[in-house]
Amino acid sequence: MTIPPPAEIGLPLEDVDTPALIIELDPFERNLRRMADEVAGSGTDLRPHVKTHKSADIARRQEALGAVGVCCQNVSEAEAMVDGGVTDVFVSNEVVDRRKVVRLASLARQARIGVCVDTLDAVTTLGDVAQELGVELRIVVEINVGTDRCGVEPGEPALPLARAITEAPGLRFGGLQAYHGPVQHVRKFAERRKLIEGSAAKVRHTLDVLERDGLVAETVTGAGTASYRFEMESGVFTELQVGTYVFMDTDYTDNQAEDGGPFVDFEQSLFVYTQVVSRPAPRRVLTDASNRAVSLDSGLPTVRANPGLEYEKASDGHGRLILHDTNLDIRVGDRFFLVPAHCNTTANLYDHYLGVRDGRVETVWPMSSRGPGN
Amino acid sequence: MTIPPPAEIGLPLEDVDTPALIIELDPFERNLRRMADEVAGSGTDLRPHVKTHKSADIARRQEALGAVGVCCQNVSEAEAMVDGGVTDVFVSNEVVDRRKVVRLASLARQARIGVCVDTLDAVTTLGDVAQELGVELRIVVEINVGTDRCGVEPGEPALPLARAITEAPGLRFGGLQAYHGPVQHVRKFAERRKLIEGSAAKVRHTLDVLERDGLVAETVTGAGTASYRFEMESGVFTELQVGTYVFMDTDYTDNQAEDGGPFVDFEQSLFVYTQVVSRPAPRRVLTDASNRAVSLDSGLPTVRANPGLEYEKASDGHGRLILHDTNLDIRVGDRFFLVPAHCNTTANLYDHYLGVRDGRVETVWPMSSRGPGN
Repeated sequence: MTIPPPAEIGLPLEDVDTPALIIELDPFERNLRRMADEVAGSGTDLRPHVKTHKSADIARRQEALGAVGVCCQNVSEAEAMVDGGVTDVFVSNEVVDRRKVVRLASLARQARIGVCVDTLDAVTTLGDVAQELGVELRIVVEINVGTDRCGVEPGEPALPLARAITEAPGLRFGGLQAYHGPVQHVRKFAERRKLIEGSAAKVRHTLDVLERDGLVAETVTGAGTASYRFEMESGVFTELQVGTYVFMDTDYTDNQAEDGGPFVDFEQSLFVYTQVVSRPAPRRVLTDASNRAVSLDSGLPTVRANPGLEYEKASDGHGRLILHDTNLDIRVGDRFFLVPAHCNTTANLYDHYLGVRDGRVETVWPMSSRGPGN
Repeated sequence: MTIPPPAEIGLPLEDVDTPALIIELDPFERNLRRMADEVAGSGTDLRPHVKTHKSADIARRQEALGAVGVCCQNVSEAEAMVDGGVTDVFVSNEVVDRRKVVRLASLARQARIGVCVDTLDAVTTLGDVAQELGVELRIVVEINVGTDRCGVEPGEPALPLARAITEAPGLRFGGLQAYHGPVQHVRKFAERRKLIEGSAAKVRHTLDVLERDGLVAETVTGAGTASYRFEMESGVFTELQVGTYVFMDTDYTDNQAEDGGPFVDFEQSLFVYTQVVSRPAPRRVLTDASNRAVSLDSGLPTVRANPGLEYEKASDGHGRLILHDTNLDIRVGDRFFLVPAHCNTTANLYDHYLGVRDGRVETVWPMSSRGPGN
């Protein structure tokens, strides 16, 4: 059964069915432009990560504002973006299953396709499939600069991989991926800067090792919304994989800016629109924003512009709020906005975005790459 | 873009695309039969909650084994179940928005429909819409027996609601809902029993209040997989809303049985099938079971039958595992089963179940009521 969108274009917000995932188009568009402006002329390219929004509609807008392409997190996400008209897709992750590699390489008939590796076996599989299908794939060696997920250690371990890619027909050596994930959640500005200085040093060392062997990395890709300025100014990164800046969430605004205040370079533009279904006790408010409507992996959502109301617990059918200020007039049927704690995983719970401006639905965008990540 | 199932019927398990949501059909069918057998002849009816599985295919199997109908958590779930051939749906929740009430009442042309209330306003809306559409709705008064979500307090507060329902044309007074949610996660058997004895006393008191007014509750509905025996034996509950028993999860098996051992009345039948994409360090294993493929609201999943391997962290593209026993031969491309911490929210991340028996895909069932819960 297909899930219908919770509103049609033109509907006033108060008539939208809840729960609904809302993009406020004014701050959203300002976020897109601001990042494009920041990166323009910096000597680095913008390659936004679509794992945040999962929307080909938004990816095309990012390309139109100057992005060189997008990052995807898996093959099905790459398929959805190419299907939606995106022309340059980099899977910022390892793809090892041969059937997935065939699917990925098939996309290279329609778009420029890149992917990460951290083993020689993967280089062999990618090379074999690229040759078989008569396509070229851009292969990036992932190095571990502190994320402790995939990737070889910086320096010497990258060399045999880069060499093997260079030697494989059908593959082009695309450079290095050096993404620092945990730094995106380090609250203090100076600590984030220090960690990315460490990443940059590891990249520089790896580039030196490669260059001694005559290998040139055409890109060094990495960065996230909470660290991109440091990568941009590092002199070694060439491509920024920022994602969250389009929407923001409480996990990112909990970060500190340089002055110690909240990190508000970008504005909150994503919200869960919810309705009160019960107020059975003075301090207890139940809404329809259950654990199906808000993700909980980075904590609880907050209530926008309502300090007297706190989202306390998500269960299978309800979101329970505490009303700290019982003078607030909260009734069954009232509607308000929640700010997600993690925009990526909240988006993954929905099939549509409603783009809203001046209190009316202006766009209905499908969630192009929702799903478990095949 | 529609998400294709990760396998077709007949495929061997090793050829299934990952991540995939797997039902092992043998234990699953034993769970269905065991609960049906337990309840048969107990004087209570089985009305399984589909919020666990969200599958009309499974709901029809539960009806075929004697369930009187199903519980749903919201209107879109009720729509999906009626669309899938389920003939008796009770929304175990408050539905207050008039447009949602119209959608719900419209289903009463095709199936028997019931719903909870905890305000007189809701009774009025439901009565008006039922009359307008010429249908009958079964209306159940929810009382709060300790869940502290929706519901009026037990006793007197239920009376005006029951009376209003009885007096409204188009509405039938269906009795009481007395679901104790938190008890499902209370580890100690004796504590769970004591809490449900408390629920039963509150129900009894409320029934007395109603009976003094000449009002008879045709059902008292409640219970979950971790408590249903207590409700079944209470003498006041008539209907059991068990859900998790079909699949189980680590949150439920963390409960203790009467003998202090793990709660294993039902077998684990639901798994996330995942593949190793990187093993860049001896103790570090990365799989494709990211935060898109496993829910995290009740903690991390565990690795089935592999004590040397621990799921440590979910991120946007990966599930990171620690290999405690480095003698284990874990390689890129290896596949294994994860046991979800919370089956309900994990199922909500997928579009399909693969039913597997003897190492082969036997059924592909769509996730009928996935989504934010509209």
